[in-house]
Order: sequence, then structure tokens, then C-alpha cells
Amino acid sequence: MPPPVADLLITGCSQLVTLQGPVPRRGRALGDLAIIDDGALLVSNHRIRAVGPRRQVERLRDARRAEKLDLGGQVVHPGFVDSHTHLIFPASRAAEYEQRICGKTYEQIARSGGGIRLTVKALRRASPAQLKNHALEFLREFAAHGTTTLEAKTGYGLDWKNELKILKVLADLRQQQPLDIVPTFLGAHVVPSEFRTRPDAWVNLLVEQLIPAVAKAGLAEFCDVFSERGAFTVTQAAKILEAGQACGLAPRIHAEQLSNTGAARLAVKLQAASSDHLEKINRADIRALAASNVVCTLLPGCSFHLGLQNYAPARELIAAGAVVALATDFNPGTSPTVSMPMILSLACTQMRMTPSEALAAATINPAYSLRRHGCIGSLDVGKYADLAAFDVADYREIPYYFGVNLCSMTMKRGVIVHSKKM
Amino acid sequence: MPPPVADLLITGCSQLVTLQGPVPRRGRALGDLAIIDDGALLVSNHRIRAVGPRRQVERLRDARRAEKLDLGGQVVHPGFVDSHTHLIFPASRAAEYEQRICGKTYEQIARSGGGIRLTVKALRRASPAQLKNHALEFLREFAAHGTTTLEAKTGYGLDWKNELKILKVLADLRQQQPLDIVPTFLGAHVVPSEFRTRPDAWVNLLVEQLIPAVAKAGLAEFCDVFSERGAFTVTQAAKILEAGQACGLAPRIHAEQLSNTGAARLAVKLQAASSDHLEKINRADIRALAASNVVCTLLPGCSFHLGLQNYAPARELIAAGAVVALATDFNPGTSPTVSMPMILSLACTQMRMTPSEALAAATINPAYSLRRHGCIGSLDVGKYADLAAFDVADYREIPYYFGVNLCSMTMKRGVIVHSKKM
Repeated sequence: MPPPVADLLITGCSQLVTLQGPVPRRGRALGDLAIIDDGALLVSNHRIRAVGPRRQVERLRDARRAEKLDLGGQVVHPGFVDSHTHLIFPASRAAEYEQRICGKTYEQIARSGGGIRLTVKALRRASPAQLKNHALEFLREFAAHGTTTLEAKTGYGLDWKNELKILKVLADLRQQQPLDIVPTFLGAHVVPSEFRTRPDAWVNLLVEQLIPAVAKAGLAEFCDVFSERGAFTVTQAAKILEAGQACGLAPRIHAEQLSNTGAARLAVKLQAASSDHLEKINRADIRALAASNVVCTLLPGCSFHLGLQNYAPARELIAAGAVVALATDFNPGTSPTVSMPMILSLACTQMRMTPSEALAAATINPAYSLRRHGCIGSLDVGKYADLAAFDVADYREIPYYFGVNLCSMTMKRGVIVHSKKM
Repeated sequence: MPPPVADLLITGCSQLVTLQGPVPRRGRALGDLAIIDDGALLVSNHRIRAVGPRRQVERLRDARRAEKLDLGGQVVHPGFVDSHTHLIFPASRAAEYEQRICGKTYEQIARSGGGIRLTVKALRRASPAQLKNHALEFLREFAAHGTTTLEAKTGYGLDWKNELKILKVLADLRQQQPLDIVPTFLGAHVVPSEFRTRPDAWVNLLVEQLIPAVAKAGLAEFCDVFSERGAFTVTQAAKILEAGQACGLAPRIHAEQLSNTGAARLAVKLQAASSDHLEKINRADIRALAASNVVCTLLPGCSFHLGLQNYAPARELIAAGAVVALATDFNPGTSPTVSMPMILSLACTQMRMTPSEALAAATINPAYSLRRHGCIGSLDVGKYADLAAFDVADYREIPYYFGVNLCSMTMKRGVIVHSKKM
């Protein structure tokens, strides 16, 4: 936590997009942004002390004494909460990108030693300092694109030593830069090469030793599994996630990305915090998810980058009343982008989410999936002053002007962590 | 032309992507980038004096005396040439974007008074200063994304007074900022509301008065037509483009975007500089285009932003030996992006162009379509020192890291016009 700063009055918010209201947002309410025109915020000791129309906030006694920040007419909303990233990896996979363009499938590349296993090999060779510096560059870019909190998964170590290396890098990064990083243990990303002929031995190792050790060390908050053909079966996933729950790690799950396996139903059964991907869900899955509090975290960057047209059925999920979130899935194989504005553009143009639905799905709902909706995800009194300002006339222009970054300022707990004028 | 500057030696180009070789690039040769590892450039009086491996260029006598710019390991390529933009417009159409997401088609919006005609109404009310300042903001962003030359069309004025207003704004902008702007007269963008019941009267006015007047005043280099259902027929397009040719304006044409009309064949018949869009071309069109020197300018931003899956058949065009280029189609209705890196990402993931093909299609081939291949589009001795540096390890990472801008420096005629460190 940075040291306390003087009270700060922020004005010049032509649209102050507060996202005040019920948590989580579901169904028709998803797009309720609770916008205040010409709004203002009073920030005190890292938190929002007051929020409302400028004239009202300015009148407060503490506002008159506070330092002033006039944004001069910007759209301001809660900082993006990116609830699915694979932040820690050693290098890009641009060569594989070209192979895929030339016709190889994700699964073909994986079978020929590319894909996740290639990154695992390189990560095992990389030092903690290399991994940290690589991640720090990207964290600055996350902040520059308006993200203030992100989840980060392990899963490129796939042995105890290297998974621990990632978890410790994440712990270091939490201390050394301003963004909140929420750690998730994904020892079940793929079956490590060493266990290829006996995957259940790896599952047992996870369940009996690694997951309890991670939980005991307090190095992760969530436990995740990639349940898919070529990764882990639903039965294995259940075993792993239940082991996590038993020691206090709430479940998240990579579900139904390339095939329908039943993983989304497992998420519902376990009351998982989030089920992610969902490109291949069916109607019954949609009904089950909508009847639950499991957040449906959609990752359109992945379909885009792989050149697939298998976007998750966002409209059907919203219509059914599910809790929908959006995230980057930042990773070197299938979605190498840090930009939540880009994810919003994809959600709007490719999945037909409205700009308001996309914005709620990128702030309050992912905050709920990370169990932080009490302190971030909306601009409410008492929550942290985590916010992003955009140099646009209307919030709809954030996804509209696609492929460019119009974020002019990002604030984390009342401290400016990115500014175009810096 | 800015004043002469001291000779400049540029080193630290881990990949110097020169694009040296035949012009235009077609077929298999499209992806020939002629990369020099650890390359260097000597710039003298705005132009490239020497280009080659660092050790070789450094040894030149003038290089030793020159100012030094060490980029410290960046990928450097010719500045992007964006050969299709509608730069001059007064405001975004973000509300229409939302309507389209909610299910209205481009043509439905146009019929209900939205679309191009909405921008025409607003442009007629806007002052030249307003239009210029709006464009200047975007020009800075074009430069920040690595573009050094762009084409700009009229077509939101649609009467003599307002088309002339746009042309004069473009002429002013050429003087007041560093990027090259190539003006195209697009009086035939849509039929103006005043002529809706008698489109041929507008065509006659264009042919007999406006086109000759524009050419005489030296305000445009090219003449363009939007040939489409609801815009101009192929017969009308032929009349307009022939009138342009008769007074020295080379033809460009918006062809086969929403339906197959025969416009691509007209482009071949007239030996047009460029035929743009081509989403709906058929096999015979592809053969005809491939046998010509007409540049096939593909605009994937448009299909993306409209949420359509009708990308132009880039692979078939390349296989047939056509001259393929990429452009943003920057405009408020169908492609509000200034980012050529984003267009490269779309070309790679959605049209299966390789990163090398996409890069050639964004530099040397559009330079050819703008008849400027003698002075820009590749890093050759004697050409202008127009270049873009990217903070990546490999040129393939430029499209790979999608939705973010990794351009660290843009140079126009030897002068730095954008720098992340500025």
C-alpha cells in the first residue's frame, strides 16, 4: 500500500461511468452503467470519499481543501479488472503464429512440441529476474490501457520448482509495482511431458502435495484447471478443484473452449468463481450457468488471434441471465494482448455485446469473479479510487475506435500510474 | 519540405526490413522483405544515402561525421503507406455503431438517414478550422502508429462548396504537419440528398464541372467512385472515372464491397491505380485483376468493424499473382481506426496473410498504388528516409501483439515526428 496522499478532487469527467448498482450484473441489467454527466470524485486515503455531480461534490468542505485534478472533459470509469491472464512467460511465440496462419491448427502445433509445452521449456530455463522484467514491461502496458487489477495464473512451470518460481515472481511483482495482481494456481494447465504416459500421477501429485503446499504458503487465492481434449478430463478437473476448495482455494476453470466436455456443468456443481472460454457450450449449459452465480468469463481475443469464428454465445448467455465478464486471456500462444479496450471492440463487433454491456463485463463482473467486488469494480463511496480516463466524447467510442489506445490516465488507489502527459 | 538537417547515422536496427526488390510485389514475391540483421541507415538531406549491414555503413566517411541515433535493438521498416482513408469528417458515429450491434444493417441505417449522409450534414455545418483540428488530432495518431504517407478522399461534402472546403483543408494540412497526404476527389461517394431522385444530374455535374475544376486547381491527384447498390452503377462510375482520366486524375474505385457489380472489371479496363474493398469478387474478377497492374487494396478493418465475416479473398488474389495492398479505410462509419498495425493483425488472423505479406502490402505496394514508389515504400538509396521503428524482437510480433501500439519512433524525411520517449 503506497503512503497516504492529500485529498484529491477530480473534475472534468464529462461522463463519469460509476457502475453503481447491483452486484453482479446479470441479464438486462448488465448494461446499466449509472453514468453521471459532468461528474466529480473526491479521493481520500486511496479511497473514494464522495462521487456525484460536480456541483454537489465541489460543495463538500473537504473538496474545497483538496488538491485539484481537472481532466478537462474525459470519460472516466472504474479501472478495468482483467480476470484471466497468464502473465508470467518468457517470450513470444510469433513463429508459431506464422505457422498457424499457414494452416497448422492449435492442436497440430501442440502435438509437434509447440504450444504450451514450448513455453514451459523456455520458462524452466529462465531466471526469476528475467521473468519479472518481462512481466514488468507488460504490466506498464496493462496500466497504460486502463487496467488496475489483473488475475495471473501459473501453469508454464509444471513442476514444483518452476510453479513455485512463478508464484514467487507474482508475489514480488505485487510489491514492486502498483497494479493489483490476483494469483491463481494452474498446475493443471497441461500434463507435463514427464507425466505424459501417466497423467493421473500428475493429478495425484497436484492434489496430494502441490495444491496443499501452495495454499499453506498463501501464494494463490484460486485454483484453476484447463479441462479439454489433450489436457484434463472433467473427472480429473473435479478432483483437482475439490482439492483446492478443501484448502481454501476457490475454483476457476478453463471450460468448453475447443470441445464440449461437461466442464461448464462442473463449474456450476462446484459453485466455481468463474468458468472461462465457453466457446462450445450448449443450451443446457447456458441454462445451468444462468441459474448459478458462476461468472462466465469470455475471452474473445483468443478466437480472434486463432482466426476462428467460434466466439462464445454472449447474447444467449446475457438473455438467459448469466453473469458475463470479459478478459484478455493474455498469453503468448492464443491471445497476446494486454488491451481491454481491444477486448471491448471484439466483444461489440464479434459477439454483439453493446458497449455498455461490454464495459460492465470488464469492471464490476470480473471484480465479482475475483471476490473483490467490495473494494473495486465500481465507483462507489468506500471503494478504492481505481479508475481509467479516456480521451473520448462518449464511452461508446472506447470500443468504437478499435485497435488504438485512447486511455489518457490510469489511477490506482488514488495514485496516477499512467498518464499520456507523463 | 522541412529545412535540411545534418547527416544522421541510424544504428541499433536488429532487423532492418528494407523491402528492396521488384515493384510492385505480386504472387509469391509479396512476402520478400529483404531484411538486414543489425542494419544501419545513413540519412542525408531527408533521403537515404546508404543502407546496409551496420559495419559496412559505419565505415563510410560521411557516416563517421554524421549525428548518431542508436535505436538499441528495434525492428525498423519503411513508414506505412495508408492508401485509403476518409480523413476529413466532423465527428464519430458511435451511436450508429451501437445500433448496428443491436441488429441494424449498414444499408438499413443508410436508408433511415444515418450513415454517410449523416456525416455529410454535419460536415456542411462544420468550419474549415474545426475540420482541420479534428484531422490534426488523428494525423498525430497516424504518425504514432508508424504511418508516414496517407491518401485522403473527399466525399462528405457532396456539393461544390463543401467538396472544395475539404480539398482546401487537405491542402492546408499538407503544409501544417509533416505527413504526406495524397488527395483523392470522391465527389461520387453517394448521391447527395438533393439529387436523390435524379442521380444522373449529379453525375453530369461531376463530369462536366466539378472534376475539371478540381483538376484545374491542382487540388487532387486521383478520382474515386463508390460503385455499389445504393451508390453509383458501373456505367455511372465509368463515366466519372473517364472524365477524371481526361483531365489527368488517375482512377481509384470502391469495388465489390457489398455485392458483385462488375466494378473490379471496370478498374481493369481503365487500368485504375487501385480497386478497393473486393469482398465480393468472383474467380473471373480475380483472374482479371491478377493479369493487370491494378492494385487490390484490401480493407479488413471494415469487415471487422461491421461484424461481417466477408473478408476479401486475399489468399486467392496472392495465389493468382495480383498486386495486393492493405489500408485502414479510416472513416467514421465502417472503419474508425488509424492503426496500420491493427490492419496487419486483421490481415494475418482473418485473411491468412503471412506477417511478411502483410508488411509488404502496407508499404511498397500501396506506395505503387499512389504512384510514389520511386520515392517511398522501401528503404532504398535515394528514397525519402520515411521509416517506423517498433519495440519488438521480430517483425512478426508487430501483428502478433494485436490491439496495442508498439511503434516507438516514426521518421518522416529524416525528421523524427513521433517518439515514445518524446
